[in-house]
Amino acid sequence: MKQIKIGLFGLGVVGRGIVQIIKDARNAHAEIHRICVRDINRPRPIQVPREILTDNPDDIFNDPEINLIVEVISDAEASYRLVTEALRRGIPVVSGNKAMIARHLPELIYLQNCNNTALLYDASSCGSIPVIRNLEEYYDNDLLLEVKGILNGSSNYILSRVFDHGEDYHDALAKAQRLGFAEADPTFDIQGYDSLFKLVIITVHALGVYVNPDDVFTAGIAYISDDDIQYAREKGVKIKLVAQVVKVSDDRFTLFVMPEFVSPSKYIYSVDDEYNGVVIRGECYDRQFMFGKGAGSLPTASSILSDVMARLHDYRYEYKKMHYMGLPEYTTDVRLKVYVRYRIPEQIAALEFDEISERYQSAAHSYVIGDISIANLIKARHALDNRDVFICNIPRFFLDRD
Amino acid sequence: MKQIKIGLFGLGVVGRGIVQIIKDARNAHAEIHRICVRDINRPRPIQVPREILTDNPDDIFNDPEINLIVEVISDAEASYRLVTEALRRGIPVVSGNKAMIARHLPELIYLQNCNNTALLYDASSCGSIPVIRNLEEYYDNDLLLEVKGILNGSSNYILSRVFDHGEDYHDALAKAQRLGFAEADPTFDIQGYDSLFKLVIITVHALGVYVNPDDVFTAGIAYISDDDIQYAREKGVKIKLVAQVVKVSDDRFTLFVMPEFVSPSKYIYSVDDEYNGVVIRGECYDRQFMFGKGAGSLPTASSILSDVMARLHDYRYEYKKMHYMGLPEYTTDVRLKVYVRYRIPEQIAALEFDEISERYQSAAHSYVIGDISIANLIKARHALDNRDVFICNIPRFFLDRD
Repeated sequence: MKQIKIGLFGLGVVGRGIVQIIKDARNAHAEIHRICVRDINRPRPIQVPREILTDNPDDIFNDPEINLIVEVISDAEASYRLVTEALRRGIPVVSGNKAMIARHLPELIYLQNCNNTALLYDASSCGSIPVIRNLEEYYDNDLLLEVKGILNGSSNYILSRVFDHGEDYHDALAKAQRLGFAEADPTFDIQGYDSLFKLVIITVHALGVYVNPDDVFTAGIAYISDDDIQYAREKGVKIKLVAQVVKVSDDRFTLFVMPEFVSPSKYIYSVDDEYNGVVIRGECYDRQFMFGKGAGSLPTASSILSDVMARLHDYRYEYKKMHYMGLPEYTTDVRLKVYVRYRIPEQIAALEFDEISERYQSAAHSYVIGDISIANLIKARHALDNRDVFICNIPRFFLDRD
Repeated sequence: MKQIKIGLFGLGVVGRGIVQIIKDARNAHAEIHRICVRDINRPRPIQVPREILTDNPDDIFNDPEINLIVEVISDAEASYRLVTEALRRGIPVVSGNKAMIARHLPELIYLQNCNNTALLYDASSCGSIPVIRNLEEYYDNDLLLEVKGILNGSSNYILSRVFDHGEDYHDALAKAQRLGFAEADPTFDIQGYDSLFKLVIITVHALGVYVNPDDVFTAGIAYISDDDIQYAREKGVKIKLVAQVVKVSDDRFTLFVMPEFVSPSKYIYSVDDEYNGVVIRGECYDRQFMFGKGAGSLPTASSILSDVMARLHDYRYEYKKMHYMGLPEYTTDVRLKVYVRYRIPEQIAALEFDEISERYQSAAHSYVIGDISIANLIKARHALDNRDVFICNIPRFFLDRD
């Protein structure tokens, strides 16, 4: 059996997890051959032989023994340069950088095809849950109707602390960062972008269509307040940050990331702490639910290792669905029912509701509940940026138990 | 893209589901070319063109246009003859016959290799949950510690009716049969053999080792009584029929099928009705949980269709783990803690306990709780056959939340 010799970029939380796991997994047919880091002299909480460290990427690119590059640096720009360079040289890559992948996927697919090589990134979505691989290989038919889930372990951890443990939002955020569940920049998690990038990648493998992340409505939990939490508690629901891609008809689909009121009958209601959970809905099998650790060093590293092992057998994504006839089209012409909490009316003046069904006003806070199209949410999003406004989806259009 | 032309054996509940799904899935690159049934004149609850029906298997075997055989007949002997004949002729096969596959897997692997063809059977285990494919492709490293789950939708449905709805066991069994959740012969489900066969198949793909089903301790729910249900209720647990394969050390593993007391903190506690749920435990990712419909015509048929679609890309199981160095060995030298309810002491005289920790005796029923090795359970199993004795595992040796 062939031996995988890895050139590793990055020795942060995930990189160290990979070194650890490959050391522990005795049969793993894989070894770390070289590690490229920014500063080779920096003290590290892991023992690595000094001679395999380098700060020169060419030491990896030009090493003929290296047959796989694993890239786990957090800087998306640097990741883009490394991954495209590797693919151009025909070297297969495993990457966990969801922001980079979501922004450049069409080019990355093109480079894989041109250079007859592979880029694997199961670790980029949902940590240890094999969502991409399953969408690509198993749900490989047009019976798929919806993929919906909690894709960000960090914001889910915060919401769990707030809902189940009555903690203050800011305390919970600080704790998530302390425990290493939060990404390098926490705004990435709490403003929904981490979920968005994962959703864009999932959509390619679910429906065969690439949607630019800039074209997708994304709202996070950064401005959730005690009023919102109180409101949800009174209604007997939890607030979760949910990403979803949904076929709204035979030939159209939509996708968005938004906090959502989740009732106890839903599978994702019980996805707590740093866990991720994904519901895949199809025409025949109804709903399937996958659940596992979505954040943390070892779960992410083990997912990277699954991609590494897949290269033993020369596995690559075929992006089969992208070649299907009659692919569905992305639409934002879909009406949602949303709860919008604000402080002063000017904050939400940009929101063009089709219909408002409830209004609540008080000195401290106010909210409206109404119908609005995703197109209008997108139009208003910049006017909402950095305002103390909380938007939450009230599921209605989609089937009951999800 | 290539077109799959299917020769279908069997037009029962699952066979009709397949015909239905392939008709509905407009992009499915697959068509039913010929269907072999026992009696072509029998009235059927589905419209099938008369000219594609045959009662002669050779009409399928000798048709050069057919490039895939799908076999969904319930008779394991006939299934064995058809599948081995097809493989010998080099025709790929998709089968859902877990009894046949579990009994003959070594030969079936040999035939695939000799004739350079494929047998896919994801549908054989856990209906719509892609357990086999994930174990084969994704959990493809030696970090796997345990696969444990509810693999039989029919017995789980019965236990759910009894526990959650207070129904009588025999009423619940009759209802399961009426709803089509029970297999042709209900003893197959309720005595644990259906779970056993699935577990044997799962073990090959989880650990790379084939264990003969005859060598595995299997107890079912056929003799569960109100006393047992009452006992479980008082302890705040549910009784579930659980199949598990567990690494007990670096080089040894065990597997067995047994009812188990499941506490509310476990993932499988909330797997109710006809659903299946599987927990995969690994060294790094902790636990992953997969959940979906485990019985019924369409869920099974959609799983068969996923196998059919995989053949578009010439997918086959590589049985990679069987070629690993240092495969773990099957052992029955593992002590379990069990609850054994009986009527008269003679019924359990054959059970050699290492240690008994509790005894309860009354005129109506009695029980013991004690430690016993799996080897001793296997030795005593024929003495327990068809006796009003109920054995239930009390998990203790394995980690807490599973």
